[in-house]
Amino acid sequence: MSLLVIGTVAFDAIETPFGKTDKIVGGAATYISLAASYFTKNINLVSVVGDDFPNATIKLLQNHHVNTDGLQVLKGQKTFFWAGKYHNDLNTRDTITTELNVLENFNPIVLESYQDCEFLMLGNLVPKVQQQVIGQLKKRPKLIVLDTMNFWMDIALNDLLQTIALVDVLTINDAEARQLSGEYSLVKAAKKILNMGPKYLIIKKGEHGALLFNKDDVFYAPALPLEEVFDPTGAGDSFAGGFIGYLAQSKDISFDNMKRAIIFGSAMASFCVEKFGTEKLIGLTQEQVDMRVQQFVDLVQFDITLV
Amino acid sequence: MSLLVIGTVAFDAIETPFGKTDKIVGGAATYISLAASYFTKNINLVSVVGDDFPNATIKLLQNHHVNTDGLQVLKGQKTFFWAGKYHNDLNTRDTITTELNVLENFNPIVLESYQDCEFLMLGNLVPKVQQQVIGQLKKRPKLIVLDTMNFWMDIALNDLLQTIALVDVLTINDAEARQLSGEYSLVKAAKKILNMGPKYLIIKKGEHGALLFNKDDVFYAPALPLEEVFDPTGAGDSFAGGFIGYLAQSKDISFDNMKRAIIFGSAMASFCVEKFGTEKLIGLTQEQVDMRVQQFVDLVQFDITLV
Repeated sequence: MSLLVIGTVAFDAIETPFGKTDKIVGGAATYISLAASYFTKNINLVSVVGDDFPNATIKLLQNHHVNTDGLQVLKGQKTFFWAGKYHNDLNTRDTITTELNVLENFNPIVLESYQDCEFLMLGNLVPKVQQQVIGQLKKRPKLIVLDTMNFWMDIALNDLLQTIALVDVLTINDAEARQLSGEYSLVKAAKKILNMGPKYLIIKKGEHGALLFNKDDVFYAPALPLEEVFDPTGAGDSFAGGFIGYLAQSKDISFDNMKRAIIFGSAMASFCVEKFGTEKLIGLTQEQVDMRVQQFVDLVQFDITLV
Repeated sequence: MSLLVIGTVAFDAIETPFGKTDKIVGGAATYISLAASYFTKNINLVSVVGDDFPNATIKLLQNHHVNTDGLQVLKGQKTFFWAGKYHNDLNTRDTITTELNVLENFNPIVLESYQDCEFLMLGNLVPKVQQQVIGQLKKRPKLIVLDTMNFWMDIALNDLLQTIALVDVLTINDAEARQLSGEYSLVKAAKKILNMGPKYLIIKKGEHGALLFNKDDVFYAPALPLEEVFDPTGAGDSFAGGFIGYLAQSKDISFDNMKRAIIFGSAMASFCVEKFGTEKLIGLTQEQVDMRVQQFVDLVQFDITLV
């Protein structure tokens, strides 16, 4: 029984209204793995970096219960690099630089020792590569979660639709749900997207929380109102990591347990944005995680009994 | 014991992506009174119209338990008229016409029979006029709720700040909270605004729900994801009406009961936007209201017990 995570392990350079960083460690799979590590201790990583990637970070991942045997380190090549600048509202950003580097010809390999995968998290990546990973699994996992973004809707829609048809849960943001469905109403958008294959759709709305849809039900999870949002990079990935990490640990994929998982995912996202990069996701205590989750419980709890 | 409502009773002409209306009945106090009428049967109205205002609507308000003795009908004058056009996202709108008419010299009169007021709802109106109403009350109500908008922040900020200092609960939207406080973070904005006088602040976020703040606590109420939002006009007023109507009926102004009141207010707002103008707020059954509130309960309910 394990959680398999694929996605980028990368360098980012980030500028927000509160400061800027040099090259720091980022990447969807990095955030996902770190966030998931607070819930499950059996995480297998499939990704690729160049030999410019710091060994210390690979060690750090290992210390967070992440098996990095499936992390390819390509000699003489460079790690994927993204640089971006956030606007003042932190909800929108411009990409300054994208250097694909090792991602250009990434050929993911699911090791034999990874085949016991019960939970598969497909972090944001080329849809074709995401499909390849599903194709390499001898037994279909109990749950496949897919995270993607508008970029792939723009340049590889058909590939993306094929990947979407193969998964159980799709996570995208509200603008992406509107783009993918052509519907402004998120309720209508959800209906159309659920017809594309997934049984569950999570629409992430940043500071406005997240919605979970299946055919019959909908759940609205709040976001924690924060005094300071420092850097939104990785918030969606941290959410996904907390979500699937909690599910993998509890092994219960009912709608009711997904609601809980979304709260745990939201808690991890709320940590993530409080510092630059992955900094806040490193070395959290169980008590800190529990206290944060309790804040979410307190935030939305009310007591109405209708006769 | 009664609920006193002041605000506009007006004509609106509305254009949304889904259609447009001729002059129809609108106005903050109209929406507030109708929404509140589903919770409390003792509503006193202070407002003004011209003799072009339909008697049938005054009758309708009376049928909804609204005492209209304090509604001045000015002979030979015209009712306040607003025309507006919503953009495609329904979150923003342009004002096409504003004809103040009877509002230009509105002199509100709190009748002797209205002096038993325990709950006062100051609907959106000139801040000076809102203050005049407070000044005419011989005994301070148990709870004063103030709704206002960016327009008064732009042209009458000092008057508005004086009014804000006199009330218990302020309701504004997120953009207005940012404008009033000069803070982007709503948590920081709330702190500053609570220092201006009110003990409670409600920040309305439209399709993203609402936040209730006091000095120590925060509550996040969702909005119901709707398939069709037809016309957002009056949603904030319907919210305020449901909120104060529920409080007036239960006579409990604790933070916990305000959380309930916000859910009832949100339910009334969710009805309001489903049709043009006040149409959907007329003749709802208790069962319809209860079912809608139950949808809110189901929408956010989750069960996490931390050890």
